Amino acid sequence: MGFDVGSVLTKMSMVSASDHTSVVSMNLFVALLCACIVIGHLLEENRWMNESITALAIGLCTGIVILLTSGGKSSHLLVFSEDLFFIYLLPPIIFNAGFQVKKKQFFRNFMTIMLFGAVGTLISFAIISVGAINFFKKMNIGSLETGDFLAIGAIFSATDSVCTLQVLNQDETPLLYSLVFGEGVVNDATSVVLFNAIQSFDLNHINSSIVLQFIGNFLYLFIASTLLGVVAGLLSAYIIKKLYFGRHSTDREVAIMILMAYLSYMLAELFYLSGILTVFFCGIVMSHYTWHNVTESSRITTKHAFATLSFVAEIFIFLYVGMDALDIEKWRFVSDSPGKSVGVSSIILGLILVGRAAFVFPLSFLSNLTKKSPCDKIGIKQQVTIWWAGLMRGAVSMALAYNQFTRSGHTQLRVNAIMITSTITVVLFSTVVFGLMTKPLVRLLLPSPKHLNRMLSSEPTTPKSFTVPLLGNGQDSESDLGGHNVPRPTSLRMLLTTPSHTVHYYWRKFDNAFMRPVFGGRGFVPFVPGSPTEQSVHQWQ
Amino acid sequence: MGFDVGSVLTKMSMVSASDHTSVVSMNLFVALLCACIVIGHLLEENRWMNESITALAIGLCTGIVILLTSGGKSSHLLVFSEDLFFIYLLPPIIFNAGFQVKKKQFFRNFMTIMLFGAVGTLISFAIISVGAINFFKKMNIGSLETGDFLAIGAIFSATDSVCTLQVLNQDETPLLYSLVFGEGVVNDATSVVLFNAIQSFDLNHINSSIVLQFIGNFLYLFIASTLLGVVAGLLSAYIIKKLYFGRHSTDREVAIMILMAYLSYMLAELFYLSGILTVFFCGIVMSHYTWHNVTESSRITTKHAFATLSFVAEIFIFLYVGMDALDIEKWRFVSDSPGKSVGVSSIILGLILVGRAAFVFPLSFLSNLTKKSPCDKIGIKQQVTIWWAGLMRGAVSMALAYNQFTRSGHTQLRVNAIMITSTITVVLFSTVVFGLMTKPLVRLLLPSPKHLNRMLSSEPTTPKSFTVPLLGNGQDSESDLGGHNVPRPTSLRMLLTTPSHTVHYYWRKFDNAFMRPVFGGRGFVPFVPGSPTEQSVHQWQ
Repeated sequence: MGFDVGSVLTKMSMVSASDHTSVVSMNLFVALLCACIVIGHLLEENRWMNESITALAIGLCTGIVILLTSGGKSSHLLVFSEDLFFIYLLPPIIFNAGFQVKKKQFFRNFMTIMLFGAVGTLISFAIISVGAINFFKKMNIGSLETGDFLAIGAIFSATDSVCTLQVLNQDETPLLYSLVFGEGVVNDATSVVLFNAIQSFDLNHINSSIVLQFIGNFLYLFIASTLLGVVAGLLSAYIIKKLYFGRHSTDREVAIMILMAYLSYMLAELFYLSGILTVFFCGIVMSHYTWHNVTESSRITTKHAFATLSFVAEIFIFLYVGMDALDIEKWRFVSDSPGKSVGVSSIILGLILVGRAAFVFPLSFLSNLTKKSPCDKIGIKQQVTIWWAGLMRGAVSMALAYNQFTRSGHTQLRVNAIMITSTITVVLFSTVVFGLMTKPLVRLLLPSPKHLNRMLSSEPTTPKSFTVPLLGNGQDSESDLGGHNVPRPTSLRMLLTTPSHTVHYYWRKFDNAFMRPVFGGRGFVPFVPGSPTEQSVHQWQ
Repeated sequence: MGFDVGSVLTKMSMVSASDHTSVVSMNLFVALLCACIVIGHLLEENRWMNESITALAIGLCTGIVILLTSGGKSSHLLVFSEDLFFIYLLPPIIFNAGFQVKKKQFFRNFMTIMLFGAVGTLISFAIISVGAINFFKKMNIGSLETGDFLAIGAIFSATDSVCTLQVLNQDETPLLYSLVFGEGVVNDATSVVLFNAIQSFDLNHINSSIVLQFIGNFLYLFIASTLLGVVAGLLSAYIIKKLYFGRHSTDREVAIMILMAYLSYMLAELFYLSGILTVFFCGIVMSHYTWHNVTESSRITTKHAFATLSFVAEIFIFLYVGMDALDIEKWRFVSDSPGKSVGVSSIILGLILVGRAAFVFPLSFLSNLTKKSPCDKIGIKQQVTIWWAGLMRGAVSMALAYNQFTRSGHTQLRVNAIMITSTITVVLFSTVVFGLMTKPLVRLLLPSPKHLNRMLSSEPTTPKSFTVPLLGNGQDSESDLGGHNVPRPTSLRMLLTTPSHTVHYYWRKFDNAFMRPVFGGRGFVPFVPGSPTEQSVHQWQ
């Protein structure tokens, strides 16, 4: 998927009639971002709200104001561009997710995550596509081809991992968080791969060889993307370990990490791989090796700088979606048949609910069969939460819908306009209604004694930062990694009972014997007097 | 100066024939940035090199490779755009300069800096313009109007503060650094204001009212830009102090700081002010108030994140200039008359040397007359260093030359092509030759016993970071600020002898009595147990 860096920039500039207008737009947009952060902070105590919904609401309000002041001509500051999203906004979000994810949980549930993310997305895709073919053909909304129906399936199979991250909490519900979030990342990749496959394959002659080709293509993409991310991460670790030994320089270390991560994403785009998967695994490898090779200042800086970038990109996306939702041009086409648009949106929402239920419950059952320890099994309450937390659709769906149903950012055909407005309706409805209900639902189903009011994935360690020593902050997210030499009773038992833990055990041995001495990492960075790294080695050994 | 956000993006995309080509370009560019950082680091010990020259060299080599592989068609990956430079690359560099500058030195020499930056630039502008009119009219290089000659004066009066920062060192030569760097910032603003004035005023009817209008315009721009930056900085301090009290959140704090700084720059552009001055003063105010109101993690993160951004932007610019220098289209026009191009470049270089000498030595003499203390006077060796360190011309000159002599990134008229190629020659020659000679010259003229081999403005405190406690790193650049309650003998004497120190004294009183209680700042942030802020207060009182 070679996204067009050029056209995104051209598209952004199309809105600006004059130089000064675009400066006004940028000012307004930056000011709104500030407003979102401040208002989101003020609403933090509110149990219903989260930052996504705040940004959406502010975006909608701004859209209304622009609509009124411009006399109904336009509601947006910048035209929504899927390229802006894929090239600039998504990479920091996914990279940060990989960088901050609790790796032990993630890899322990790797098979379940893959099952949900790949197989589950395919099930959801099939159900939504078949449902769309059956319902929409009866509704007479215009001529849609087979490719369009399959695209609808792919578009609405993409869960919004950004929104999910804000609703679940890594510290409170680690299993759920790693499952839902991990699924979200694999799901994003699956949807994009599916979508690209639909656009490139000849769909009028589907036979078994095309299906095999498709599966082969998918496996190639998955493995190659992952490898590229791992190689980029290891390369950054190696460069920093070898070159910077003894004379660390924070700015250069941070710059190298950011640039290498972005390079891995762009290389994946260059080779038509999944940049999302690449940058996710690059984030994981960087936090496992590179992060331990740099100075303390660099550790704190990267940890927070990546989280901040991701945070701003998330707010940017929701603000953008909210502002774009009122774009009058699209709604004009559907204003003569509002019933049909509502009907299409309702059908899609129904299909999303059914499509997700159709894989969460059966696949959870399958996953539970392989687990012997009851604490690893996914209970029915957790299944309901997983089902519900993945219902939200977000910017990925928007981006894919724009790609499929518009060509130059404008909607000319009536059926295309209906599909775009329905996508917007589904995204807004699922984010606001499902999103608002998730937090109370999680509290109802999974009451936790230490239920704190934290929302952002990157936040948990931050509030401590002024009461604990500085590096405690950094070590915190790594403590589950460092503890490998002291297996706790539960993990020791699980090691004996489940095969995935045996794999994990051999990986640890390999990691300690070969990987860490070469690429650095916890306990294998050169001795520097006064460095907490040294202390932490003693702490764990 | 309302720079066109839209056209920069359009221009960038013009190079890309297809989607994939632009992805290739971006990959190559990011990879080259990484290479510059690594190679720059490896060459750090070399007394002649600095990061600018490395990036220029790599850019030139890449340009040659592209030129050869494309069969002589093009040498650049992205068309040089003055808007990309002014909207995205310059703000982080100047903001970081304000954020990291030693404020006490800067304000102590404020009058001298203003004298050099404003009056000096005007003198240099007049000499270069008059010289250009006299020499170029005799050379028969084509039809240039009065406006073009004045523009040449403005273009070549802009010293390259980016390159200067890399050559001088804040810790070794604080007086020189603050003079040359402070002059550079004011000079940038003056050049851009001059340039815009030349483009907007009717130059065929110059009379005293236009001159008065011009001076009034300049004063308005200077004061309004400074005020805007100060207000933006104070607003960020106030927001963070009031809202985040007791429940700090690093990501939000960092995001607010970055967004407010960028907003101040964009607001200045919106109101046709000098964004450079605004963002510089915003950086100063943020480091004086806002920085003290945030958590330790935020302090370390902002300090290093801003430095990294600035560092990457600097390398980006030099790489860009190096790559663009070989653009074959421009050189084709001058290939039939190479002598003329060399002649024009030599004349301009000569005028730059004379123009700078014509204000550095007389204004230093004037400045020395007002100072009674001999340690505040600028010695002849220092004057030579100031003269030499400001000879480099850089990206600002390039950007202004492109603005004046091209309209769509291409050079159609022969005289315009000559001016562009001469600008490139002057920039390359001054950066490489004058740049290479500055470091040895500084060592020769001002030998320092503790001469260390550091190059970047932001580097000085970094290498310590693994031997001293973490916040020591942050306090380091602020220590000159905190020391105000314990005036050292020299500053006590100077307080009595020079009026500027009396102003400084009353500002301190006002700052402590009113500003800090409202906006926070060192010693006035709320008490947080375990926070080093508290310790540092005791330390200074």
